[in-house]
Amino acid sequence: MAKAILALALTTLPAAQALNVARNPNFAKLQGGYLFPEIGRRRNAFVAANPDKADKIISLGIGDTTKPIPEHILSGLVEGATKLGTQAGYTGYGSEAGNGALRERIAESCYAGTGISAEEVFVSDGAKCDIARLQIMFGPGVTSAVQDPSYPVYVDTSVMMGQTGTVNEKGQFDNLVYMNCAAENNFFPNLDEVPRADVYYFCSPNNPTGAVATKAQLEALVARALKDGSILVFDAAYAPFIRTEGVPTSIFEIPGAEKCAIEVNSLSKYAGFTGARLGWTVVPNALEYSDGSKVRDDFNRVMTTCFNGASNVIQSGAMACFSDKGKKEIDELIDYYLGNAKILQGLAEDLGLDYCGGDDSPYIFVDLKGKSSWDTFSTILEECQVVTIPGAGFGPGGEGYLRFSAFAPREACEEARRRIGKIDIFKGQ
Amino acid sequence: MAKAILALALTTLPAAQALNVARNPNFAKLQGGYLFPEIGRRRNAFVAANPDKADKIISLGIGDTTKPIPEHILSGLVEGATKLGTQAGYTGYGSEAGNGALRERIAESCYAGTGISAEEVFVSDGAKCDIARLQIMFGPGVTSAVQDPSYPVYVDTSVMMGQTGTVNEKGQFDNLVYMNCAAENNFFPNLDEVPRADVYYFCSPNNPTGAVATKAQLEALVARALKDGSILVFDAAYAPFIRTEGVPTSIFEIPGAEKCAIEVNSLSKYAGFTGARLGWTVVPNALEYSDGSKVRDDFNRVMTTCFNGASNVIQSGAMACFSDKGKKEIDELIDYYLGNAKILQGLAEDLGLDYCGGDDSPYIFVDLKGKSSWDTFSTILEECQVVTIPGAGFGPGGEGYLRFSAFAPREACEEARRRIGKIDIFKGQ
Repeated sequence: MAKAILALALTTLPAAQALNVARNPNFAKLQGGYLFPEIGRRRNAFVAANPDKADKIISLGIGDTTKPIPEHILSGLVEGATKLGTQAGYTGYGSEAGNGALRERIAESCYAGTGISAEEVFVSDGAKCDIARLQIMFGPGVTSAVQDPSYPVYVDTSVMMGQTGTVNEKGQFDNLVYMNCAAENNFFPNLDEVPRADVYYFCSPNNPTGAVATKAQLEALVARALKDGSILVFDAAYAPFIRTEGVPTSIFEIPGAEKCAIEVNSLSKYAGFTGARLGWTVVPNALEYSDGSKVRDDFNRVMTTCFNGASNVIQSGAMACFSDKGKKEIDELIDYYLGNAKILQGLAEDLGLDYCGGDDSPYIFVDLKGKSSWDTFSTILEECQVVTIPGAGFGPGGEGYLRFSAFAPREACEEARRRIGKIDIFKGQ
Repeated sequence: MAKAILALALTTLPAAQALNVARNPNFAKLQGGYLFPEIGRRRNAFVAANPDKADKIISLGIGDTTKPIPEHILSGLVEGATKLGTQAGYTGYGSEAGNGALRERIAESCYAGTGISAEEVFVSDGAKCDIARLQIMFGPGVTSAVQDPSYPVYVDTSVMMGQTGTVNEKGQFDNLVYMNCAAENNFFPNLDEVPRADVYYFCSPNNPTGAVATKAQLEALVARALKDGSILVFDAAYAPFIRTEGVPTSIFEIPGAEKCAIEVNSLSKYAGFTGARLGWTVVPNALEYSDGSKVRDDFNRVMTTCFNGASNVIQSGAMACFSDKGKKEIDELIDYYLGNAKILQGLAEDLGLDYCGGDDSPYIFVDLKGKSSWDTFSTILEECQVVTIPGAGFGPGGEGYLRFSAFAPREACEEARRRIGKIDIFKGQ
């Protein structure tokens, strides 16, 4: 009977009929899904298996902001939406590179004194999307270098574009340069050991390690890029979290960077725009490929062809972010998240574990004393109902670490500290 | 003296110092800038040379909407912004493929009865951006086919990804299939003459020709894709302009399309969202590459890795679009623009010129009786101060045509008809 039903089902199901189109072989090289949806799947699987514990779950996982957007910035968003309902205020397509006034304001607010001008600022829907667009521009022919561990998008987009081989026995992609940035290097690469690459991706304050590069370190990076004639893609998405005097908040504070660096940035993490979507990328006019053509012109071609501008509503909110009132509101949001970071530093101390980050950055990267990061992720999810991110998800160099995000609500951070502080997996080590 | 000043200038200017990074050779293949910014540059050059005529300029050029967003849809946008200011209403990162409720609503509103489910709908920031993301997925190894003339993004992204050679003496890229869709073929390709491609891009209602494919024509397209084992990327961004009974508004109304077609769509043109940014792409589960892997899974990988979700504010506005009130408002906007199209059809008739489009589409594609489209564009800009788009900007098959867009305000269309109707370049032909 069961067999008969199965036979019936098989005959009524449409036959799977593969197309005569070959899959892009670069996609077969990618390992599993993108990291953060994978974390969500594991969380959901836990909830499905333990529905009674669903209410207890706390997320210190994905770096997703949780505080509402403050009043003045919000008024910019609401006004941006409202005026679309009037004939005088309605706007359709804007420049694919962003409204001129916003580009001016970003240049003034973030790059005063560096020589960066508004026409070098490209406004977008976020830093992640801009990294993908930079990769479309670079194409398959370049060699890229990434920090290890690093934000997964640099690696995954390099693979998608065909710049790399497949994963080798070290868990690294062939033809991709890994710059070790874990504890043994004090979370900054030993540049003498790094082979030349065409494009170096570097993020400071760092995701996931929370490390913040000093001025001297950034000078060394820029000097290296200039010596190699390479491009340094600097991810400054967490720059306003820097509170220590003298630490640069833009790569363009380093002389010479305007000849080798591209900077990506975003309002996501400090204006609460993770869902609203607004970022930008600075491509200086002075950057030229070896044939003398301007890098900026090719990036402009990508922006105009593959993108249609950030939402006009959200650009209106962004204008408010760069006003005096908006900047004050952003400072208060950052104060709050850095307060959370202190609590999570305390959690690492409770556990007797070394950590990096949390002073000028919203991530705390905890050294698990040799324990597996995916196993520890699972233990903490099962025993404490706290979602974290395993360091190994950020590359082989992240194995043995766990990332806590300070973007959770204050009470969640305190409760996570109480719960995780009680587990005994690190005791006696 | 002048020589001394020049020498000084040369020594104080920073030396242009090219990097040791090769330009992506695919970018060198692209012809000039992206079309629409090029139109803007020519318009601005005219204004700079004729400042006294700046006020008179009317744009029938880029298909940019001009009517404010209607009340109910606007309330969705405003609510989406406002609730970000409250703890209960605040949201950060959502699914990269869009909010579940919106995906459900799109599936119900646009694909009822076709078998398309919400999980096959990927919400995005627009159709243009989705085409670029589809191209990242397809990669350099596929052969693409485009209508000629066509929306420039299909061609330009194919070139960027390295699918094509360089431009040949016919003005066509080598290794790109051109499907002639001008008057001699009644604006639909003669499929018997079209060589096989892996991916066919097809847009109906068409940009730029305004042609609308009949059910029989779409059946022939789907049959051809199925026979070839190819993917049909169907651009339905103008679908709601179809008012003629029996003409399909989605490719998924054609049986078999779910096994070969991907559909891109957008709220830009009929909800006034050109600046707000909201689109979607349908990738059916049944689509499989020749290795049996699911096309949908690779597109999901692109969306999660290269994109971070459409803005939550704009998704809230999109929810309002698919309510009964929102649909009624959209119908009224379309009525308005189709009314403009009638005026522009009248303009072509005044001039004694044949045209395509304007019944079920917002573009009127005018046959210039052998005149050059860029020359005619310039003449009309200079003599009438009306911006149009030369057909040749959409590919060599568009030479000898001019596109009028019906998205201008009503009075602008009427005034353009008066002004252009007076010029005598077509008289006596």
